[in-house]
Amino acid sequence: MNLTEYIESHRDAHLNELYEFLKIPSVSAKSEHKSDIERAAQWVAEKLRSAGMDKVEIVPTKMHPLVYGESLKARGKPTVLFYGHYDVQPPEPLELWTSPAFEPTVRNGNLFGRGTADDKGQVHIHLKALEALHQIEGELPINVKVMIEGEEEVGSESLWDFVLSNKERLKADALVVSDTAMLGRGVPSITYGLRGLNYYQMEIAGPAQDLHSGVFGGAVPNPLTILCELFAKLHDKNFRVTVPGFYDDVAAVSRAERKALHKLPWKEKEFRKTVGAPVLCGEKGYSIVEQLWCRPTLELNGIWGGYAGEGAKTVIPSKAYAKFSTRLVPNQEPARIARLVEQHLRKLLPKTVQMKLEVLSTGKPWVAPFTHPFFEVAHDALEKGFGKRAVFIREGGSIPFVTQMYDTFKVPCVLMGFGLPDENAHAPDEHIALENYFGGIKAIAHFYQGLATL
Amino acid sequence: MNLTEYIESHRDAHLNELYEFLKIPSVSAKSEHKSDIERAAQWVAEKLRSAGMDKVEIVPTKMHPLVYGESLKARGKPTVLFYGHYDVQPPEPLELWTSPAFEPTVRNGNLFGRGTADDKGQVHIHLKALEALHQIEGELPINVKVMIEGEEEVGSESLWDFVLSNKERLKADALVVSDTAMLGRGVPSITYGLRGLNYYQMEIAGPAQDLHSGVFGGAVPNPLTILCELFAKLHDKNFRVTVPGFYDDVAAVSRAERKALHKLPWKEKEFRKTVGAPVLCGEKGYSIVEQLWCRPTLELNGIWGGYAGEGAKTVIPSKAYAKFSTRLVPNQEPARIARLVEQHLRKLLPKTVQMKLEVLSTGKPWVAPFTHPFFEVAHDALEKGFGKRAVFIREGGSIPFVTQMYDTFKVPCVLMGFGLPDENAHAPDEHIALENYFGGIKAIAHFYQGLATL
Repeated sequence: MNLTEYIESHRDAHLNELYEFLKIPSVSAKSEHKSDIERAAQWVAEKLRSAGMDKVEIVPTKMHPLVYGESLKARGKPTVLFYGHYDVQPPEPLELWTSPAFEPTVRNGNLFGRGTADDKGQVHIHLKALEALHQIEGELPINVKVMIEGEEEVGSESLWDFVLSNKERLKADALVVSDTAMLGRGVPSITYGLRGLNYYQMEIAGPAQDLHSGVFGGAVPNPLTILCELFAKLHDKNFRVTVPGFYDDVAAVSRAERKALHKLPWKEKEFRKTVGAPVLCGEKGYSIVEQLWCRPTLELNGIWGGYAGEGAKTVIPSKAYAKFSTRLVPNQEPARIARLVEQHLRKLLPKTVQMKLEVLSTGKPWVAPFTHPFFEVAHDALEKGFGKRAVFIREGGSIPFVTQMYDTFKVPCVLMGFGLPDENAHAPDEHIALENYFGGIKAIAHFYQGLATL
Repeated sequence: MNLTEYIESHRDAHLNELYEFLKIPSVSAKSEHKSDIERAAQWVAEKLRSAGMDKVEIVPTKMHPLVYGESLKARGKPTVLFYGHYDVQPPEPLELWTSPAFEPTVRNGNLFGRGTADDKGQVHIHLKALEALHQIEGELPINVKVMIEGEEEVGSESLWDFVLSNKERLKADALVVSDTAMLGRGVPSITYGLRGLNYYQMEIAGPAQDLHSGVFGGAVPNPLTILCELFAKLHDKNFRVTVPGFYDDVAAVSRAERKALHKLPWKEKEFRKTVGAPVLCGEKGYSIVEQLWCRPTLELNGIWGGYAGEGAKTVIPSKAYAKFSTRLVPNQEPARIARLVEQHLRKLLPKTVQMKLEVLSTGKPWVAPFTHPFFEVAHDALEKGFGKRAVFIREGGSIPFVTQMYDTFKVPCVLMGFGLPDENAHAPDEHIALENYFGGIKAIAHFYQGLATL
């Protein structure tokens, strides 16, 4: 039995095993899921052992454990470091899920559930690709180091401590990550650029306590209105961010790259359909693909304050809150952007209220050339898995870790993602196309096998 | 034993009985409290019977029952219609209460609990004043009709149906209400003006579902930002509402009234202390008292949308929501203002989103002369209850029913309130000063007794 036949014959077994993984609600943002997080780490460690890893450890951290495994018996062969995460986004709002977030369900060729695309489904692709190689070849044909963390959705704080204290041990010829999306259905893709991120939380405090809007309204500051007025001032009519200096360090995209981006088989019609808004909007002077991949943003992610229950409550609340984020592109420095954003907000802030501003997480943007021979192997492997030529793309999301690794180890980072942009990562009804899950196992197995021939 | 002695000797009994009333969580805005609402209505009916009312009914309505009682045996004497409400505002946010909202507790001479000031405590003042008169005189000295509703905090919809179908039965020489506040501690007050109210709920819908702010951010409309931008446009830098036509029908306050308002023993320092905001703000060109009592407002009462949980979630939500209200003054028409507000919002609304706007409740403003002899009796009675001269004031809150009754029955409306502006009506730690609760029972008993001498 060859590699492809082995993988084909294990489709049901692989899928059933993935269900087990998805059923663990490993939500890293919420302390109530602490024990689920630990259960997920145990589960990953066990699967690494059965995929042929020699040394598997669950590494405790300040927050959530990290799972590390390695197999270093392929003397003279390349070494890859695979990175993924077993934690997931909160499932809320629960009522918008067609089937429950932690009860994986197949509908129309898609597997639905929190973590299917981001990132448990993709981590499982690697676990099963390694296991298949181990079963077919008796031993892994290359050297593999695997690092699966539990804090990706909350800023990956412990991960970096682990990397810095294990710099020698983690050395590899390439970093491999599957936490991105394909350009579209049937278009296998290798990602060479990611946006960075600062995530902020703001509190606006006015009156010392909630006040009756009849008795007090008209003479006191309303923190809700002031919060609205602040955020209304952060974009101009061309949808550019108004924070002074925000665009200072944005690297221009070369004419050649712009041309290549516009040649991609990216389907605007499908994008519009996925978004489903009456009309799109974005920074003037850039195509949608450029807006998504090459331009920075400032987006509100949540606002709250005052009464949100049934019926009417005539209150002027004491406080108003917002969560928001800036997506960053090369060469914006997250720390500098955070400083500029805070300076601007403090300048805009009226004297009638006080503001607390906190940066909850931060990550650098990343763009890199794709000239190393590993990329050719990846390109061929994707064709073996999907029967189609792969394309090179950027992505609008952030994997701060990739930049850090790229800067630290100076090795190629191969990002082969098997999600699709309309699979609702971070939203209700998250899913992965089964054809991409199964194609991914084949592609990754061939990639690891192909690296042995270099 | 005279009336004053009787009331003094029943302080503990009155207070203990009030505790019972306050312990019933009769929150009219929330359907889960349906049975509590019914329990509160039963409780009120029982107390009306023991206060000497002949006929007491619990009138079912489309929403919450209304309690009606009458005693019409004082031939040739004046008839008053007393109105109050037994429903209360929602207690949220629960964590900001020093003692639980529905466990009445005395601290520093104040009784804390939801409904203490608005309006259960004040309804109880009348129940006990009537009971005292009934006990001392054997029979009530005037004719009394009592109507206590359960929908005041949600728009009083059923109340008006009841009034219109019982117009003959409800005829009286005056309407009496205790649901307002005194100007300040030790300043008994009669209110001759109230603001009106429209309460709105808005939904802004953009993307068809929640989107990942990395994958989609920069090219799609964000309903949170658009909601902020809408509300930022509704006030100018002088804190005037920018809705065209909003001020068209606002009646000017006469020079004489302005002068009288400014002579009131109103303490700006105390107001600032109660509000506790770093700096106050309000419409330019008007004193704080005028801003609160004589000028219309537009205030956000709640905003929500996106992620509000622990940690970070990088989402662009599909929808954003707001609750807001306009406080109105004579001669603004609530229906016209609602139309103007909606027109203006629709004009400001970008094409990238859709808006639903609903008016949840509405009520007309009210201002009236206080020349009828009943006001003299009220003035004297307040002095008997509090040992101090009463003042005539307006209030910023709304009691739509007062305007409706004034317009329909053309009788004086005597508003004697026993709350204080800093007693957190509609907010956590609502309370009533015990001296005003006890003083109120005495004042109201003397008022009803005094009317018999006219």
